[in-house]
Amino acid sequence: MSVDLSRLSLNQKTLNGWTLPQAVEGCVRAGIPWIALWRDKVEETGLEESARIVHDAGIKVSSLCRGGMFPSPTPEGRAANIEDNKRAIDEAATLGTDVLVMVCGGLSGVRAIDDARGMVRDGIEAILPYAEQRGVKLGIEPLHPAFAADRSVISLLGEANDLAEHFRSPQVGVVIDIYHVWWDPNVYTEIARASQYTLGFHVNDWLVPNTDPLMSRGMMGDGVVQNRRLREAVDTAGYTGPIEVEIFNQDIWRKDGDDVLLTMKERFVQEVM
Amino acid sequence: MSVDLSRLSLNQKTLNGWTLPQAVEGCVRAGIPWIALWRDKVEETGLEESARIVHDAGIKVSSLCRGGMFPSPTPEGRAANIEDNKRAIDEAATLGTDVLVMVCGGLSGVRAIDDARGMVRDGIEAILPYAEQRGVKLGIEPLHPAFAADRSVISLLGEANDLAEHFRSPQVGVVIDIYHVWWDPNVYTEIARASQYTLGFHVNDWLVPNTDPLMSRGMMGDGVVQNRRLREAVDTAGYTGPIEVEIFNQDIWRKDGDDVLLTMKERFVQEVM
Repeated sequence: MSVDLSRLSLNQKTLNGWTLPQAVEGCVRAGIPWIALWRDKVEETGLEESARIVHDAGIKVSSLCRGGMFPSPTPEGRAANIEDNKRAIDEAATLGTDVLVMVCGGLSGVRAIDDARGMVRDGIEAILPYAEQRGVKLGIEPLHPAFAADRSVISLLGEANDLAEHFRSPQVGVVIDIYHVWWDPNVYTEIARASQYTLGFHVNDWLVPNTDPLMSRGMMGDGVVQNRRLREAVDTAGYTGPIEVEIFNQDIWRKDGDDVLLTMKERFVQEVM
Repeated sequence: MSVDLSRLSLNQKTLNGWTLPQAVEGCVRAGIPWIALWRDKVEETGLEESARIVHDAGIKVSSLCRGGMFPSPTPEGRAANIEDNKRAIDEAATLGTDVLVMVCGGLSGVRAIDDARGMVRDGIEAILPYAEQRGVKLGIEPLHPAFAADRSVISLLGEANDLAEHFRSPQVGVVIDIYHVWWDPNVYTEIARASQYTLGFHVNDWLVPNTDPLMSRGMMGDGVVQNRRLREAVDTAGYTGPIEVEIFNQDIWRKDGDDVLLTMKERFVQEVM
């Protein structure tokens, strides 16, 4: 079987037990051309060293996760969050990716969710000139409504699209993760609408039962999501970029990393492409 | 302090450890005028006996939970689900409530969520004549998207409103539970839209962290939901009926029931009315 893995990207979170150098080496061994990096892992290895490792390995960086986390009840808190986002933009530029994934932030003590949403909009506006200057795009990732309180007050792809269109900048777009949006009755309409500014696409699966929204993601094919149908919709809309496999799952984290990559490649072909 | 509890309803699920007679007696002791019943509890005590107990106690039944659960991959499965819904309609009529809460059902092995949604629409259509005949209204309750796979493919209040308006029958409306809809950017618009057919309103709270969507509901005031703001919106839309307190929470289930009712009354006044 000849398989095309040219769009496959390992999101580092799928192999959370591996350091950045281990994950890069794993991708090289497995013939996976892309990797998505997380800031905590980059910090552990060092920014410049991380950049050197991925560059020397010939692996491309599909995105850096994550910017965002804007809301705070105090102006000082919001200013600190904006500074942190500027650092994330610098890190993305250094690592050679033009996509910073934005997990916009939860309530963080803000009482009204619409106020928190306003802080997200203001936060993106505040960092946008710097993102433009550094050539980094901001990919707003709507998160499943189960995370509205503590991770992202931007839940619907429609909301992320509204935000992106509010800024009307080539520097702002959306990142679509099937785990967060598969259930949405408007998902196909909103995927089509995001045609001009989809900056990333993540696949995995929604396991049943889902006893913990954070950790009940599964490998494509192990849950109820129609991965291929969603991938076709994203492709039809015109997205041709990398497809990240991002899975938070303790059982997968316990497995041998090379075995996980093997399964990941198989499922990518069987369930996604 | 003079408090008005005239709209307060104990949803039986809040005191899951109590039988139906215990729950009714508890309401009498606490001066709570309404109760919402669950079919499993009714069956445990017996239908006629349950009806007699609530009637003799002078407690009003705000709703029966639950009808729905329509999707199935087979015609036989769907027909059986429709028959079960007719029994639920009979039970509601016997218990003296005109609202049957519809938890519409998850995927149940159906691959495409839009197909499952079609089965929900067809199921409601199939039982509607019988509901009209028995004088029971069908209250479509959108459930949090975390339950889309296994409990309700109807997630957004907007979807429930679309369904209700599709039927254009005084026998079909929606039930609004803040736990399921609080995060929705369109919630206030959709509450206003449901003005003419809101059949029920449930309060509780979204606890943070939410480590299990089913069991992480809390008492009003213990989480992040703006209960009063949502109640005011529902009232402004014109709803004047009972307000159920429905909480799935193991910690609350372990407590003394009378203590829970006392807290429930306090929080209802402090956080909701």
